Amino acid sequence: MPARLFAGLFARGAVAAETSEDALVRAMVEVELALLRALTAAGLAPAQAAADLPDPAALGGALDLDALGRGTGTDGTPVPALISALRERLAPEAAAHLHRGATSQDILDTALMLVARRALGPLSNDLRASADTCAELAARHRGDAEPGRTLLQQGVPVTFGLKAAGWMSGLDAAREELERLAEHELAVQLGGAVGTLAAFGSDGVAVMTALAAELGLAVPALPWHTIRVRPARLASGLAVALGVLGKIGRDVVLLAQTEVAEAAESAAGGSSTMPHKRNPVGSIAAVACAHRAPGLLATIAAAMLQEHERGAGPWQAEWEPMLELLRLAGSAAAAVRDTLAGLEVDVERMRLNLEITGGLVMSESVVAALTPALTRPRAQALVTDAARVAAAGGRPLREILAANPEVAGAIGDAELDAALDPGSYLGATQRLIDRALEAHRG
Amino acid sequence: MPARLFAGLFARGAVAAETSEDALVRAMVEVELALLRALTAAGLAPAQAAADLPDPAALGGALDLDALGRGTGTDGTPVPALISALRERLAPEAAAHLHRGATSQDILDTALMLVARRALGPLSNDLRASADTCAELAARHRGDAEPGRTLLQQGVPVTFGLKAAGWMSGLDAAREELERLAEHELAVQLGGAVGTLAAFGSDGVAVMTALAAELGLAVPALPWHTIRVRPARLASGLAVALGVLGKIGRDVVLLAQTEVAEAAESAAGGSSTMPHKRNPVGSIAAVACAHRAPGLLATIAAAMLQEHERGAGPWQAEWEPMLELLRLAGSAAAAVRDTLAGLEVDVERMRLNLEITGGLVMSESVVAALTPALTRPRAQALVTDAARVAAAGGRPLREILAANPEVAGAIGDAELDAALDPGSYLGATQRLIDRALEAHRG
Amino acid sequence: MPARLFAGLFARGAVAAETSEDALVRAMVEVELALLRALTAAGLAPAQAAADLPDPAALGGALDLDALGRGTGTDGTPVPALISALRERLAPEAAAHLHRGATSQDILDTALMLVARRALGPLSNDLRASADTCAELAARHRGDAEPGRTLLQQGVPVTFGLKAAGWMSGLDAAREELERLAEHELAVQLGGAVGTLAAFGSDGVAVMTALAAELGLAVPALPWHTIRVRPARLASGLAVALGVLGKIGRDVVLLAQTEVAEAAESAAGGSSTMPHKRNPVGSIAAVACAHRAPGLLATIAAAMLQEHERGAGPWQAEWEPMLELLRLAGSAAAAVRDTLAGLEVDVERMRLNLEITGGLVMSESVVAALTPALTRPRAQALVTDAARVAAAGGRPLREILAANPEVAGAIGDAELDAALDPGSYLGATQRLIDRALEAHRG
Amino acid sequence: MPARLFAGLFARGAVAAETSEDALVRAMVEVELALLRALTAAGLAPAQAAADLPDPAALGGALDLDALGRGTGTDGTPVPALISALRERLAPEAAAHLHRGATSQDILDTALMLVARRALGPLSNDLRASADTCAELAARHRGDAEPGRTLLQQGVPVTFGLKAAGWMSGLDAAREELERLAEHELAVQLGGAVGTLAAFGSDGVAVMTALAAELGLAVPALPWHTIRVRPARLASGLAVALGVLGKIGRDVVLLAQTEVAEAAESAAGGSSTMPHKRNPVGSIAAVACAHRAPGLLATIAAAMLQEHERGAGPWQAEWEPMLELLRLAGSAAAAVRDTLAGLEVDVERMRLNLEITGGLVMSESVVAALTPALTRPRAQALVTDAARVAAAGGRPLREILAANPEVAGAIGDAELDAALDPGSYLGATQRLIDRALEAHRG
Repeated sequence: MPARLFAGLFARGAVAAETSEDALVRAMVEVELALLRALTAAGLAPAQAAADLPDPAALGGALDLDALGRGTGTDGTPVPALISALRERLAPEAAAHLHRGATSQDILDTALMLVARRALGPLSNDLRASADTCAELAARHRGDAEPGRTLLQQGVPVTFGLKAAGWMSGLDAAREELERLAEHELAVQLGGAVGTLAAFGSDGVAVMTALAAELGLAVPALPWHTIRVRPARLASGLAVALGVLGKIGRDVVLLAQTEVAEAAESAAGGSSTMPHKRNPVGSIAAVACAHRAPGLLATIAAAMLQEHERGAGPWQAEWEPMLELLRLAGSAAAAVRDTLAGLEVDVERMRLNLEITGGLVMSESVVAALTPALTRPRAQALVTDAARVAAAGGRPLREILAANPEVAGAIGDAELDAALDPGSYLGATQRLIDRALEAHRG
Repeated sequence: MPARLFAGLFARGAVAAETSEDALVRAMVEVELALLRALTAAGLAPAQAAADLPDPAALGGALDLDALGRGTGTDGTPVPALISALRERLAPEAAAHLHRGATSQDILDTALMLVARRALGPLSNDLRASADTCAELAARHRGDAEPGRTLLQQGVPVTFGLKAAGWMSGLDAAREELERLAEHELAVQLGGAVGTLAAFGSDGVAVMTALAAELGLAVPALPWHTIRVRPARLASGLAVALGVLGKIGRDVVLLAQTEVAEAAESAAGGSSTMPHKRNPVGSIAAVACAHRAPGLLATIAAAMLQEHERGAGPWQAEWEPMLELLRLAGSAAAAVRDTLAGLEVDVERMRLNLEITGGLVMSESVVAALTPALTRPRAQALVTDAARVAAAGGRPLREILAANPEVAGAIGDAELDAALDPGSYLGATQRLIDRALEAHRG
Repeated sequence: MPARLFAGLFARGAVAAETSEDALVRAMVEVELALLRALTAAGLAPAQAAADLPDPAALGGALDLDALGRGTGTDGTPVPALISALRERLAPEAAAHLHRGATSQDILDTALMLVARRALGPLSNDLRASADTCAELAARHRGDAEPGRTLLQQGVPVTFGLKAAGWMSGLDAAREELERLAEHELAVQLGGAVGTLAAFGSDGVAVMTALAAELGLAVPALPWHTIRVRPARLASGLAVALGVLGKIGRDVVLLAQTEVAEAAESAAGGSSTMPHKRNPVGSIAAVACAHRAPGLLATIAAAMLQEHERGAGPWQAEWEPMLELLRLAGSAAAAVRDTLAGLEVDVERMRLNLEITGGLVMSESVVAALTPALTRPRAQALVTDAARVAAAGGRPLREILAANPEVAGAIGDAELDAALDPGSYLGATQRLIDRALEAHRG
Repeated sequence: MPARLFAGLFARGAVAAETSEDALVRAMVEVELALLRALTAAGLAPAQAAADLPDPAALGGALDLDALGRGTGTDGTPVPALISALRERLAPEAAAHLHRGATSQDILDTALMLVARRALGPLSNDLRASADTCAELAARHRGDAEPGRTLLQQGVPVTFGLKAAGWMSGLDAAREELERLAEHELAVQLGGAVGTLAAFGSDGVAVMTALAAELGLAVPALPWHTIRVRPARLASGLAVALGVLGKIGRDVVLLAQTEVAEAAESAAGGSSTMPHKRNPVGSIAAVACAHRAPGLLATIAAAMLQEHERGAGPWQAEWEPMLELLRLAGSAAAAVRDTLAGLEVDVERMRLNLEITGGLVMSESVVAALTPALTRPRAQALVTDAARVAAAGGRPLREILAANPEVAGAIGDAELDAALDPGSYLGATQRLIDRALEAHRG
């Protein structure tokens, strides 16, 4: 937590460090110290209580995680043990006012929000960098045709640029939502024992507002201790990002198949005895991380049914899964960033793969070309027959069509060749890529 | 689909009819007819093709669902069978241009978006009505104290008004997100065979735009056939709404317990032989619907990893779960609306429940009252001791405290009584309710 | 429920009819009538109460599902409305004793067990038939080599027979567990209001035993109204079956890719404009059904936390998901049965695919052949170098190796050819197939 | 991994240490060393290769987890880095034959099976100890009546002993399945690169069998690298155990509510300012662990769709969730064991709670008592009326009934008192407890 043994797949990139248990402890310390400042600002504690506070990172780093873990077993959260440990390390005035008016959940929820905000930074960076690389791929390969594949069967042509543009649109959408969440949904939680801010007297809202300002988090209208929209939305945003990253990973794995070979990872994993293998490890990392997202998302969504003023089980069940979702999203984003940055695209192989069917992938195009002369039903019937003959005999579609007098009567050789050229049947591909690139830049 | 046998729990309210298979078929018909109009508008089909088109509801209603279902087994979607059936029922020009340039996924994805938009209407209404009722409850019971309960243990007092304000804040947040999704994320899907809009020549984007306008859906930058951010976000928004509704349902179930009895459903289910039972059926409906959301959400999130230009399994796996999520959210919202509208709140019982602990729920308040005179550590130690004695002997806390000379030296009887009065220890409750009501109105 | 519109994917085969709402109503009627017989047998009702009882199918078929659905909203289950409807249709003595001593949950849980047992029959048949077809494929293709693929990269050879044997082993394991569950876990639930069988006086266990005998279900030691091991295990068994079926479906989809083309479905779905497409619809049905299993399984597993003597939400949340899981397992099994029965295996294409890498898939084999003469480290280094040269230059591995004097000094041409022959490097394939076939037959 | 910060909730008991990353590395080392012995036994390696092998725990403990984690990023699994590290630490003959014929998946899958077997030991112990305590509670409280609660409303009486017997039956069922899995499903995985055992020549099955014997694992008919029935069943067994443990936890949390107070944890967590609070931390630990099971189970079930001879994402996605499921099951079992061992049961409070409704919980019993004289419909109508009057006026049911001449005419005062005595309406409770205890002992 972060996983060490499997770090290369599940704890890649810069998010892992932000979501470690150490980072969470440091964040809890920051919340406690920020509360001292907020109390002082609200006049509920003397200035002395917030003076010369130690560095939270150093303070948090000095604590014994295992002792906090035992405290979690006794008290239900690590916060009481944390407070005891901090009191020993703080000056008397600070110690005396430490945690005043707060409840354990306030500290833990707010600390998790802090951790999330820090994790979303590098995650957002990696998503943006990946999208930028996709933009380059979209521009560079905008006209490089490859088979469009539906249900993993070759359909009609697409370009690799359009595929990259699609990836980019997903990455951008996922990132924008995470940035929106970081700004609006990552809020301070402060409610005291049951959400009334009772121990702050008439100053509760002021303290809550000051605490939020100290930490750079949003101020909620109400404490949200058991109204768990914020954690659920954060989890959803992360799962959507993982879904997009997993989609890209899966596409690359499929393109990298030995029999397809249209793309390869430049850092593909080798095998000592099978030197031909180029395992797309980065893409597999993304897919594997993405596979774990739905279960974690479901756990956090299910935890929304929290009892009265503090959940008796569902709340606690959120903690580790939220850290994991953040870590996995970060790991997948780092893996996809690396994968895309080094992606080796084989345009020639794409062209060859378009020829596998002997022209059959162009039959829809030929129907369109014949329609003006023959009407659509007749064009369709004719091409369908030709395609069957071609497929059955393993002969090129062009050969069958060229031999057909009805075709010859309808369009000339050049028109037939044009209709069989993948580049001629790309429809709105260029405009779509332009739209996507504009949206990416905008 | 909608469930008939269990409709009272899982298909309540107005959403069920909008998410039936009949409604989806009608929506598919609408999409096909709207495409004829869009083709005509773009000059890709003669005006005749879109002239005098029949009413989609009548047309859809005349189709044989079982025949479409068999077609799904043959073709992988019901669309080819739908087209065949429609061609027989349309005028020749319309029939000739029907489905031109589209692929099955275009029709099904767009129809599901139409269904979602229609379902979100009544769902949003029920969420809003529920929040309005919560606003009334928050205002009416803003000062009615009851035990705040953390981990299902009585903590310190809260008011029922604040609890209702919390529910309201969750309902509003869920609704606002769904309304945002309805406006921005429910978009037309049109891409043709592989997402290039190839069969529309250079007019693809125009047709896509015209189709969106016909149907009142958003226009995406790109077809999103395998970039499934939109379905995943819709599912997330629905699951969050279900989470809030389930939270309310669970709270009411807990308040309605025989031993707690602070609230009851006016339409509570009876039992022929146990006439004392007042089963909170509406709340249980909400909880039961909410229990099913995480699994469905996980299914749709997991389905984001769709292969290349059409998912070979994941896409198809979205269809029924999305309809179910819509239906369940609608059913839970209708149940909660009814439950809240008829909620019987027993303020007197709340007061009595606050007395169960013999004043112990006020010990934090007494510590606060003693702190100025005794310092916080001393006040805390003293009250803790008194509370232990009171709890062990089953005696009122006031009695123990009043007999303590240190207490008597610190505060007078009136102050002690005030500190033991639940109404005196509500902190920012009124301001928080005001903030929540303002946010609700705003 | 069963889905009509999407029946071809999600309600194939004979299980769908057994899991319809009509079938469940019929099963509830059967339980109520069987209880009358059990009461009579135990002397708690006169013989007249169980005399000339009507046919449950006819009786259930006459009921109004929508009325039962409305009753579910009032009472929380359809059982009270069912009882009212039945009383009107039964003779006075039967009506008077109907449902005596039972609670709604007894009827619904037991009816769902009956439905499950009936659904497991055809499901088991389809799993067995699929495994039998796999056994034939394993025997027929036991020596037909194709590339083994790890991480979707060609590794070393495998045979299609071994792949089919693996499928078979999964199908058999899944079926055996379901048959075990049918025999031991599908039990009657009878407990009365709270599980004490109170209304039966001292005869409760006798009635429970008699009811189980009437229905052919197992007798539990205790009522299991809120100890939900049985539903959870049933759901797990179904999800495992769906996992195996989905694995087979995914493998076939991958084998059927245009670029791989080692297998095709004989009933592959076509496309009017893309006649070359052979969409593996049966396999996609299996994958799509399997994609929905984890979410449903999670729902039923999460529902195990049922409160005291009847769950307030979790229990109700089980009903539709359990019917869906049964239906989806049945549909996937029917789809896989059809797919395997008509699977077109292209042995020649398998051979050609093994040549794609120019012999690189055999490099591990060559290392093994060179090891005796050169030592393993030297053999490995030499082959790795040769493989890199071959891959870089697009030249056959044999050519590079044959030109290497160290190789020539170690093994002769015939030995080199043998080492490069896929058939020579299949290890225990034949024995493993034999073991699997023995296990299948045993 | 195991979580340190939250260890008290999510890593209690003896399973945590068995499922740490260190434990998994040690298990991988054991598998590699056992393979050396198996190779030697099969004559595929000289005796020297397996002579004087170091202690796996010491060897594993000396490895650098972070280096292995980096290797996972390069190679996709930690095994290649592990092998390199081991080669440096082994004697030359052992190093030369290390990992011979195996693939990374063989080592990792088999090591996870070893870890699972070791984790199931203490898990099974804790489940058994918990069930034994339940057996004591069932015997001790077999006659102690408390309200049976359905939908969290008081229904008719049950005894606490019967509730404990239900818990016991669930614990026993969960444990028996895990023990069955430990014996039959935890099998060695050995297949080599693609599952043919190719590198072992004709000795593959012998090596596989020897390896299984070395490690005390079952021998499968076939390698199961992508037929994932075994991991899925293990996950199901763990989730079922967690479901039962969570059910117990939830019941205790509900019984421990301030307003119910029928049970308390002896080690209940306190609160510095709220000394009356007795937070049922052990039960909450169980509930929280159980809340996380469905998502993890779903992840592992979804991972069954693994591609061809090695999953490209799904396989890798199993690793951490499986370790987590084991850890959470162990933690919940340890928490429940402690909770039950120290459970404080308040029999007097149970009795008082039965009186809350003024006798209404006994109305079903009174109907039964009046039925012989009045017929059931009349008895029911009469009691229903009386119950309504009693509930409306807050008067005891006995008072209303005693004043009714029809009642007086039907039964005497003593009979009425008997019918209103909770102990008189417990049906088969004693026999059911006996049945459960017999099953537990058997």
